[in-house]
Amino acid sequence: MSKKRYSIGLDFGTLSARAVLVDVENGAPLPYASVFYYPHAVMTELCGRPLPSHYALQHPNDYIEALKFLLCDVTENNSIDKSLVIGIGIDFTDCTVLPVNEELTPLCMLDKYKNEPHAYAKLWKHHAKEEYTKKISDVAEGDYPELLTVTGGKITSEFLIPKLYEVYLDAPEVYADTYKFISAGDFVASSLTGKKELHSKAFSAKQHYRDTKYPSKEFFSAIDEGFSDVYEKKTVTSLSSVEEPIGYLSSEWADLTGLSRSVAVSAPIVDANGAIAASGIDQGRAYLVLGTSATVEIVTASAVTVRGSIATSYESVAKELYTIELALAAVGDLFDWFVKNCVPEAYFRAAQEKGLDIHAYLSSLAEKQAVGEHRLIALDWWNGSRSVVLDNRLSGLIVGLRLSTKPEDIYRALIESTIFSVRKIFDCFKEQEISVNLVSATGGITLKNPLLMQICASVLGLPIECLDSKHATAIGASIYGAVAGGAYASVTEASQNMKCPIAKTYYPIKEDNEKYEKIYTEYEKLRDAFCDGTLSTMKYLFEN
Amino acid sequence: MSKKRYSIGLDFGTLSARAVLVDVENGAPLPYASVFYYPHAVMTELCGRPLPSHYALQHPNDYIEALKFLLCDVTENNSIDKSLVIGIGIDFTDCTVLPVNEELTPLCMLDKYKNEPHAYAKLWKHHAKEEYTKKISDVAEGDYPELLTVTGGKITSEFLIPKLYEVYLDAPEVYADTYKFISAGDFVASSLTGKKELHSKAFSAKQHYRDTKYPSKEFFSAIDEGFSDVYEKKTVTSLSSVEEPIGYLSSEWADLTGLSRSVAVSAPIVDANGAIAASGIDQGRAYLVLGTSATVEIVTASAVTVRGSIATSYESVAKELYTIELALAAVGDLFDWFVKNCVPEAYFRAAQEKGLDIHAYLSSLAEKQAVGEHRLIALDWWNGSRSVVLDNRLSGLIVGLRLSTKPEDIYRALIESTIFSVRKIFDCFKEQEISVNLVSATGGITLKNPLLMQICASVLGLPIECLDSKHATAIGASIYGAVAGGAYASVTEASQNMKCPIAKTYYPIKEDNEKYEKIYTEYEKLRDAFCDGTLSTMKYLFEN
Repeated sequence: MSKKRYSIGLDFGTLSARAVLVDVENGAPLPYASVFYYPHAVMTELCGRPLPSHYALQHPNDYIEALKFLLCDVTENNSIDKSLVIGIGIDFTDCTVLPVNEELTPLCMLDKYKNEPHAYAKLWKHHAKEEYTKKISDVAEGDYPELLTVTGGKITSEFLIPKLYEVYLDAPEVYADTYKFISAGDFVASSLTGKKELHSKAFSAKQHYRDTKYPSKEFFSAIDEGFSDVYEKKTVTSLSSVEEPIGYLSSEWADLTGLSRSVAVSAPIVDANGAIAASGIDQGRAYLVLGTSATVEIVTASAVTVRGSIATSYESVAKELYTIELALAAVGDLFDWFVKNCVPEAYFRAAQEKGLDIHAYLSSLAEKQAVGEHRLIALDWWNGSRSVVLDNRLSGLIVGLRLSTKPEDIYRALIESTIFSVRKIFDCFKEQEISVNLVSATGGITLKNPLLMQICASVLGLPIECLDSKHATAIGASIYGAVAGGAYASVTEASQNMKCPIAKTYYPIKEDNEKYEKIYTEYEKLRDAFCDGTLSTMKYLFEN
Repeated sequence: MSKKRYSIGLDFGTLSARAVLVDVENGAPLPYASVFYYPHAVMTELCGRPLPSHYALQHPNDYIEALKFLLCDVTENNSIDKSLVIGIGIDFTDCTVLPVNEELTPLCMLDKYKNEPHAYAKLWKHHAKEEYTKKISDVAEGDYPELLTVTGGKITSEFLIPKLYEVYLDAPEVYADTYKFISAGDFVASSLTGKKELHSKAFSAKQHYRDTKYPSKEFFSAIDEGFSDVYEKKTVTSLSSVEEPIGYLSSEWADLTGLSRSVAVSAPIVDANGAIAASGIDQGRAYLVLGTSATVEIVTASAVTVRGSIATSYESVAKELYTIELALAAVGDLFDWFVKNCVPEAYFRAAQEKGLDIHAYLSSLAEKQAVGEHRLIALDWWNGSRSVVLDNRLSGLIVGLRLSTKPEDIYRALIESTIFSVRKIFDCFKEQEISVNLVSATGGITLKNPLLMQICASVLGLPIECLDSKHATAIGASIYGAVAGGAYASVTEASQNMKCPIAKTYYPIKEDNEKYEKIYTEYEKLRDAFCDGTLSTMKYLFEN
């Protein structure tokens, strides 16, 4: 019998990072998973000054501290022989970027820039100023529409170019002193290997790299003459394959962690893609990740433009495959907003008496209702809309409110509103004749909210497999570590062998599916009115 | 110096009745006002069986108990010589009706019918089945449009004919055994005087009497052959003037109360009209009564059809004047719904720490905001829409919701939504070239919620006088008692002498008025989309 070999999967999320240690033979995780909460979390102020509400900054030192803690903690608490670790895989939120100097030091860590917001990491959900985004979009939509094919026809304020343009305009000195703007995933991988010039293919879409093509100098100079060489000078333009190691643990990190210098580090991947690998890479399947926000992804053998997609990338998951990502801007965040702002004390008391958390208690009341019984419809744009329209100006709506409406009614309507948004995404797959016959679901909500999962199956009319792991994304990352470490010849092969088992499959309830079809038709009319400009209310409220 | 003379004003509301004792010379109320809460309140069940949610029944014995209590209590606690009381005026909610037998005994008080919902008083807000209302409306709109001129072009399920048709169809035995269906106000006045055949002019509009004309037999037989003689046989068809006494206290009531048999009882008036008399009867003024729901009224010298009016009646307030009533279906009810269902405990705690009630606390937070700052718009149809569209299918809506939205934001948006509905009513006055330059406001909210009153003044762009009385409606009723008792030659003259003083006048803030104009334009677009059928959502939710 051959010796056990392990891969470490590192998952860098919005508020914390986690690590799993996985047997490369079958993907089984060892019992102890390690979690590290970023000390600075998402920064809302800097040196005592509050940051604007569209800002979402992180401190990159938190990532380094996470690495130090997790690599030791996960190996030591699982009591393995550290020499059996062959690879490290990393996933990271997409389009979280930071400026570094030639030594790969984040600018915010220099004394000169510690008070400068633009020197920090801009999290995926940091929004650049709308006026900057508009200028870039206007140029792209006018003369460079090919650029938009990878991002569903839009450039949003969360993408790379607006984030860089904001630094260029609002913090010219930071811009000038920046050697490269790199993705936070690349920063972490670079730190581990000492490889300074790194740009993982996985992060290419929201940076508007397409395969091996880059936005042209002409495009950038049409935005602003001084911005024309931003890609050439300020970003890394060679792409690293996710199927190959980008390097090996540096001696400094080997010393720090007790791991071998022969540990291979894979090119980082996008966090949502970790779920794809952990579910088994498979065309005909949709991958749903339900967390504070949500993503829906599919993999295809050919480039397809799906309406509302925010990122189409080639080989970001595996060789010769395209990954198409669509997203919801708020899911868990929306339910949390609701329980924090709209639920009276009596509900919390009743939940406590039944030994349930407030979400479980509201669900227990809501699940007693027949479909449509609450007579409400909501639009889930509490954090703007991501797919299938990319529009931050859109906002949340509830209609059907009566003096008899109860909190559990609204709670259920909010659940349905997020699921209808998922359904809308599936409609876009159908438009492109992409057939989906199965859904793999991961993320905290899948294991905590059976009502939501059942509604999802009934609305979509498809079975939904919920993965039996709280750390599916990290397990997905470990699969890339296993490939980098040489355990498998390809990511697809590794994924088939190492994917997570299924905790539960939800099947559509036929009667509910039929009722939801009718409600969904009404929902679409309402939704379309606010999207297409028939009703200007949301846009007015945002802009005035 | 002549001896003091007094009038008693009795105000019958939804949950309680009250009495004031007023000096007929100047309208000054004596210090003690008496209140009686109906033991059965609004009945939600009958003999242990829950009633359907569109029912709103009352027990008429509560009205009699109220009379017994109030007439004694208000005179004795003010320590007056009872022989100085010259008149009693009564106001009552409009279109609260009950079936009585020839002895004027409500059918529900007979053993045979004590378990029969249709034998009880149907409160103003009792809704007959929509299908019945639709049938009646279809007939009226088709061949008898003249009937609808007094009710703004519509028949709603709260009006008399649907309420009677419901009894005819659903409780034929009650219908057969009913001598007359009479308004609860007439029932109370009849009880005091022993005058059995009474129908006050004040209640004529929602009963589709127009001046001296009645809906025809043909109209009723087009609805249903067996229903053709409903008005002829089952209602009182002679109208009593509000300017004359309908009779004098019966010996039985004189004995019970210690009041003189010479006390004149006026024909009852509609509760909202009490506020008109108490404010001073005046063309060019709008009368706003803000309670659980709200009414907006004007008086005119000629018959005008105002869009959305629910009752236009002749001489229901005073001789030779028309009263035009428009209404909001939920105001205080809406804010109460909000604090009961949507406000987290932390707000109640903070309110308590500041010694404020929850409404005052939410207002204190909301009033710090600039106009439009919360970026929300709401449609206030939590209880359906009354004016300017009469449509129970419409429901409440909030748009603009964000993860940053706070309860006080929604609270302020709800206040604004009710005021925008008032503004919409004022737009309808303008359409008819009815000039309004001043608003008189009464009702609990006017003295309790300065934020709402200030927003109202700024949105309407008009000064608003809030009457300095918690019992303005009852004082209005007492004015009719004074006329019946012979103290004045007319209601208009009595009203000028006896009207309430002003507690506070709110003036529009120019800057806010301008900002609200813009928001109101957006509000109108949104509102119109749901009203005119562009967006079917609300109607779908109601009907499915």
